[in-house]
Amino acid sequence: MDNVYMKRALDLSLNGIGKTSPNPLVGAVIVKDGKIIGEGYHEYYGGPHAEVNAIKSAKEDVEGATIYVTLEPCSHYGKTPPCVDLLVSKKISKVVISMIDPNPKVAGKGIEILRKNGIEVVIGILEKEARKVNEIFLKYIRDKKPFCILKTAMTIDGKIATKTGESMWITNEKSRSYVHELRNQVSGIMVGVNTIISDNPSLTTRLEHGGIDATRIIVDSSLRIPLKSKVLNINSPKNTIIATTKNADSKKIEKLKNIEGVEVVVAPMKEYRVDLKYLFDYLGQKCIDSVLVEGGSTLNFSVVKECLVDKVITFLAPKIIGGKDAKTSIGGDGFERLTDAVILHDIQISNFDEDIMIEAYTREEMS
Amino acid sequence: MDNVYMKRALDLSLNGIGKTSPNPLVGAVIVKDGKIIGEGYHEYYGGPHAEVNAIKSAKEDVEGATIYVTLEPCSHYGKTPPCVDLLVSKKISKVVISMIDPNPKVAGKGIEILRKNGIEVVIGILEKEARKVNEIFLKYIRDKKPFCILKTAMTIDGKIATKTGESMWITNEKSRSYVHELRNQVSGIMVGVNTIISDNPSLTTRLEHGGIDATRIIVDSSLRIPLKSKVLNINSPKNTIIATTKNADSKKIEKLKNIEGVEVVVAPMKEYRVDLKYLFDYLGQKCIDSVLVEGGSTLNFSVVKECLVDKVITFLAPKIIGGKDAKTSIGGDGFERLTDAVILHDIQISNFDEDIMIEAYTREEMS
Repeated sequence: MDNVYMKRALDLSLNGIGKTSPNPLVGAVIVKDGKIIGEGYHEYYGGPHAEVNAIKSAKEDVEGATIYVTLEPCSHYGKTPPCVDLLVSKKISKVVISMIDPNPKVAGKGIEILRKNGIEVVIGILEKEARKVNEIFLKYIRDKKPFCILKTAMTIDGKIATKTGESMWITNEKSRSYVHELRNQVSGIMVGVNTIISDNPSLTTRLEHGGIDATRIIVDSSLRIPLKSKVLNINSPKNTIIATTKNADSKKIEKLKNIEGVEVVVAPMKEYRVDLKYLFDYLGQKCIDSVLVEGGSTLNFSVVKECLVDKVITFLAPKIIGGKDAKTSIGGDGFERLTDAVILHDIQISNFDEDIMIEAYTREEMS
Repeated sequence: MDNVYMKRALDLSLNGIGKTSPNPLVGAVIVKDGKIIGEGYHEYYGGPHAEVNAIKSAKEDVEGATIYVTLEPCSHYGKTPPCVDLLVSKKISKVVISMIDPNPKVAGKGIEILRKNGIEVVIGILEKEARKVNEIFLKYIRDKKPFCILKTAMTIDGKIATKTGESMWITNEKSRSYVHELRNQVSGIMVGVNTIISDNPSLTTRLEHGGIDATRIIVDSSLRIPLKSKVLNINSPKNTIIATTKNADSKKIEKLKNIEGVEVVVAPMKEYRVDLKYLFDYLGQKCIDSVLVEGGSTLNFSVVKECLVDKVITFLAPKIIGGKDAKTSIGGDGFERLTDAVILHDIQISNFDEDIMIEAYTREEMS
């Protein structure tokens, strides 16, 4: 039954998607005499932890109960008091944990305290699943850089547009709607300035049930962004960050900085372009734990080349466009040799009607 | 149980793959008193039909038995006498048929004769599956043109080679081995001359259990094929056909014609190239019922544009190469508008380890 209760806790944790950043998604289930008596999850950044919510929801006394929690209970004072103290004081008798908290402030200390207080602790139930649920948090806590998802959408012959540039729409409605689910899950969304110039997207999150905008990040080495672009004139709780270089016109920088909700970062240059490694570090410092890169073709290759990508999500539409001059999803200079190719791992395939979505990782496993 | 016996008959029919062309794959199972007493399939072109082999294999008298056969039994004298006469004379009491033979010489006549002779006939068991097994035959009998499979292999960013042209290997060994299974299933394999010049493939079928070569067809509008190419100097039971135009050097044509196993077709031109519609008609007349098109990029688009493709098989390798100048699977001029795109149907996904194979059709259903 451990797996069943932990699966329930993991499912609960997903309710926090998009709202807990840069903190983890956590779910908890309290079980007593073979039935669930309390449930909770980490609802929003700074809010009560999953354990607290589960205990609060309990319909009977939790003394002697078992709690299933998807992440090691915290042992430190953060935005809230330590959960382990609560578990001890409530006389929980057993704590089943999916994974140890990689946060150096916890990292096993929570478990130690529980055990010292005579509470039985089991670790590692559905750990792989829990690590996947918190892949963003795991990367961010370790590297202080955003978890980077490279999203592409192409025809079955690898094109993102016809030779004349027509790209609306390659994929179907369901695929495009899922992209908004992705935007809802990340704290940053990144495009190159050419995408702004050619498509003028708003880069907001549009979901039936609302959805949370991500911070928009525009990579614009020579500051070519048109002042009338939607991303500069938008009603959104999140900022638009323009990343540029010293090649930018300083007057234009000033103009942009005066727009409400617009921020300009003058990054160092690498090969005459924004140094993306610098930019990702900068975003990490700004608490942006995840970035969805949505093109174009040149920026996509740059993030791949700089080894910044963690996950690749490719939508394949069953259509043929053809054309030696039609753009492909990942352009730029490209690698010269096949031995240089980035190999993807842990491939998952899903379907959105006739469209195919392929998810894969650039590393074998997130450590 | 009808489905179970018919599934067995379909499985048996597959043993004839590559050997019955341009005739259909047919399997038959004889059932008496609830057990299978005989099985057979159409083993090779001109050989005894499935029904004959099944009756021959029967361990007891077939009188009063039911025969499951994946295609309507024939009613005409072809290479062998009519199967319906045999079924009547052997006093089979029931015939279960997957699909009516689209061959105008049969097309319901077999069923009519059986019924006239008091034999119960059931039609349509696993018909969809049977039509798929005989998709090549169905197309060929209807159009007298080869069933065309366009096979491509690319990275997850749509490239068939790096920008320097390195393409060995994009896909893994299992995928490449399956391509030889495909070659084994078709009677023709087609490439453009650039593929011959750059890769110098032998285009033979190399399978552990042997495999049957397909007729090699090289589309070479200006007759640039090097005389030392492997396809011109090969030990194979099948010919190499070079399709060229009047632009070809007539002396080179003569030279090529003098090579054993080499045939030259001077086709009419369309846009300064071999008229592929003419070529496919020509191949149909030569009893080539199926053609696997294996590139390159330009030829691939030409067959798509000329609406010659029936099925698309795409291998996707989970690798990123990048490069705006790296070649894609379907190049050529390309379509200008997304509304011109060829829409694929009936998508099937398979895995070869980490590689993904996508099969799809250019038409909703083969009629």
